[in-house]
Amino acid sequence: MNLLDIKSPADIKGMSIDELGKLCGDIRHALLEKLSRHGGHIGPNLGMVEMSVAMHYVFDLPTDKIVYDVSHQSYVHKMLTGRMEAFVNPDEYNKVTGFTNPKESPTDIFTIGHTSTGVSLAGGLVKARNLIGGKENIIAVVGDGSLSGGEAFEGLDYAATLNGNFIIVVNDNDMSIAENHGGLYRNLKELRDTDGESPCNFFKAMGLDYRYVAYGNDIRTLVEAFGSVKDIDHPIVLHIATQKGKGYAPAEADKERFHFGGPFDLASGAPMSINKAPDYGTLTAEYLLNMMKNDSTVVAITAGTPGVIGFTPERRLQAGEQFVDVGIAEQEAVALASGIAKGGGKPFFGVVSSFLQRAYDQLSQDMSINGTSAVIGIFYGTILGMNDVTHLGWFDIALVSNIPGIVYLAPTCM
Amino acid sequence: MNLLDIKSPADIKGMSIDELGKLCGDIRHALLEKLSRHGGHIGPNLGMVEMSVAMHYVFDLPTDKIVYDVSHQSYVHKMLTGRMEAFVNPDEYNKVTGFTNPKESPTDIFTIGHTSTGVSLAGGLVKARNLIGGKENIIAVVGDGSLSGGEAFEGLDYAATLNGNFIIVVNDNDMSIAENHGGLYRNLKELRDTDGESPCNFFKAMGLDYRYVAYGNDIRTLVEAFGSVKDIDHPIVLHIATQKGKGYAPAEADKERFHFGGPFDLASGAPMSINKAPDYGTLTAEYLLNMMKNDSTVVAITAGTPGVIGFTPERRLQAGEQFVDVGIAEQEAVALASGIAKGGGKPFFGVVSSFLQRAYDQLSQDMSINGTSAVIGIFYGTILGMNDVTHLGWFDIALVSNIPGIVYLAPTCM
Repeated sequence: MNLLDIKSPADIKGMSIDELGKLCGDIRHALLEKLSRHGGHIGPNLGMVEMSVAMHYVFDLPTDKIVYDVSHQSYVHKMLTGRMEAFVNPDEYNKVTGFTNPKESPTDIFTIGHTSTGVSLAGGLVKARNLIGGKENIIAVVGDGSLSGGEAFEGLDYAATLNGNFIIVVNDNDMSIAENHGGLYRNLKELRDTDGESPCNFFKAMGLDYRYVAYGNDIRTLVEAFGSVKDIDHPIVLHIATQKGKGYAPAEADKERFHFGGPFDLASGAPMSINKAPDYGTLTAEYLLNMMKNDSTVVAITAGTPGVIGFTPERRLQAGEQFVDVGIAEQEAVALASGIAKGGGKPFFGVVSSFLQRAYDQLSQDMSINGTSAVIGIFYGTILGMNDVTHLGWFDIALVSNIPGIVYLAPTCM
Repeated sequence: MNLLDIKSPADIKGMSIDELGKLCGDIRHALLEKLSRHGGHIGPNLGMVEMSVAMHYVFDLPTDKIVYDVSHQSYVHKMLTGRMEAFVNPDEYNKVTGFTNPKESPTDIFTIGHTSTGVSLAGGLVKARNLIGGKENIIAVVGDGSLSGGEAFEGLDYAATLNGNFIIVVNDNDMSIAENHGGLYRNLKELRDTDGESPCNFFKAMGLDYRYVAYGNDIRTLVEAFGSVKDIDHPIVLHIATQKGKGYAPAEADKERFHFGGPFDLASGAPMSINKAPDYGTLTAEYLLNMMKNDSTVVAITAGTPGVIGFTPERRLQAGEQFVDVGIAEQEAVALASGIAKGGGKPFFGVVSSFLQRAYDQLSQDMSINGTSAVIGIFYGTILGMNDVTHLGWFDIALVSNIPGIVYLAPTCM
């Protein structure tokens, strides 16, 4: 079957497992063709090929609903829901955004760009369905770093109290944007290492039913796994181990670089263009590393985006204990900075403009009210920001300017 | 010993366990005297008497540091650290704020009013201490609802990666402001029911060492428990079961009403004044209940403060499935409202002005960008707000006004 013949999920419903397997191969090939020329979220989507195909094979969209979080892992979903052209026809590459978008398809329920919100949003769909008396499956697909944000925890905590069908798929690729951090990820590893059998289980401790799926890039396994929870009558976590960058050796080898990037040479994986001019991130990291040499209390903090502030794996090693990645958890980053300052340290928190708003209350309560001295470096602000509606760099000055005691400095020329 | 003779924690260091027990009785008596005349956080502090005394007996402040979250449970700490007059001398009642405050005492590390931030802030102290090479104990006291906010989860997740001493005390009184909700609280109950032995353990799943203390209102037990973790060389959770309202029958019986309140008759527990005029909360709840009768898709949501929006226990029963308390988790409340709206329901989220800022990113991403219709009712806004710096009702309009697509309506007269 030609990929372009797939106009909707109905077109894959009659396939055999072997045909689905071949389809996954074709999709992965097309994905690599597009991403190598166009850029985008590479590793996350390569890891999601089989899972996306299996979900569309088992569930019936748009009646059943899938909420992707973070939705940068929805490319294959888009390919299967009427948007194949945008992935196989170079002239159409720009016809889709990088996140789910209800304006593109009724199978996209929400636009989700910031992470950790999917379980909460899907929980709302479940609640509404229950009140209306519907019976459809509601699936939240989380992972690729989206478990570290506090809202994910709040969402799971509430999910355990919901009645009726709710399938929470945890795409566990053992990565955030960079490597994972935090105690939770040790438990995910323990669960992977014990085939889900460890009695110490974060999801069960949150009050949720749980199943583990070890081979998240095997189409037969996934079709069976989703089939076994379809129409289930209570909330359940399906913890699925996948490989980020699956099927493309350079992306399997360097998961951080291939999380998101511009065009690359398909044969070697080398980026098509390397900007050799020093950028804001590199300058920042070098400046901080220099300070750290003379002052052991300087701490650089990132919330899951070390690359943005120039902290390459090498520089992270160099900084040692003076570099902290709290995971995608901006509230923690700001509060931690305040605590470090109060304890006599000199914190620097570098953050993408759009993500600063995830820590409004911490800027107000933990920092402003407590008068702690921290430097917050804003990256990708204003019109130099990222280009999706979910990642605009326009709000930082407005939101910070109302909080007493915070001085916002911005360059007036470049 | 007269309570006024206690000028600093040093004054209780030489006491026997029996003397400490008598001290706890005297403190509880004084607390009740003040709170019955002055109002304040009643139940939380009655439950914390023995724990506060034991901590000051075992640890050495201000070298060792205690971070209270939420710090409305710090009254006894204040009594033991140079501020006894403000609790036993009616003329001095207003000399202390209701939260920890570094301006009052060097033993108050942060001002914490919004909840769930303590582990994160204390984690910053730990990080700074490690870099500086200090050896002091750092203790975070969380609980009384402060585990349900996402930042608490982010804080625990990072805490598990810290080196050196870090004692996280979970004051588990089985309550938030109202009753607890969410899957996590089932695990806390399981841990209480199994004397901490259940293999399914939220804190261990977060990568943390763990001990359970069943008798959190017994001074001998607590002195031993804190003694056993003093100077411990790694992060540990001390899960301590206490009774909210301990020692005062009306507060033990009606934990929600005695969480926070104005003056009351000490003999009966009856409030000194009852405002019979219908308030904003009552009007809101009655209006919503009326709507619910005719429309099964109307949902009233609170983030742990049902009383604020007029949903008394009776009205909660009346609303049934159409009332949701997500716990103190405003991010969840806004995202859930967005999901309910997307699923065809009609959500109302009622929130104290000061707490709306805990959901800035959700207002922006989950609601504004997704164009979902929800009504958010703001309570205690502007100069009618609460009177502590941590709970000012001045910021809601400023922060909301920069988010596209949200209409803010405010009365121009009363």
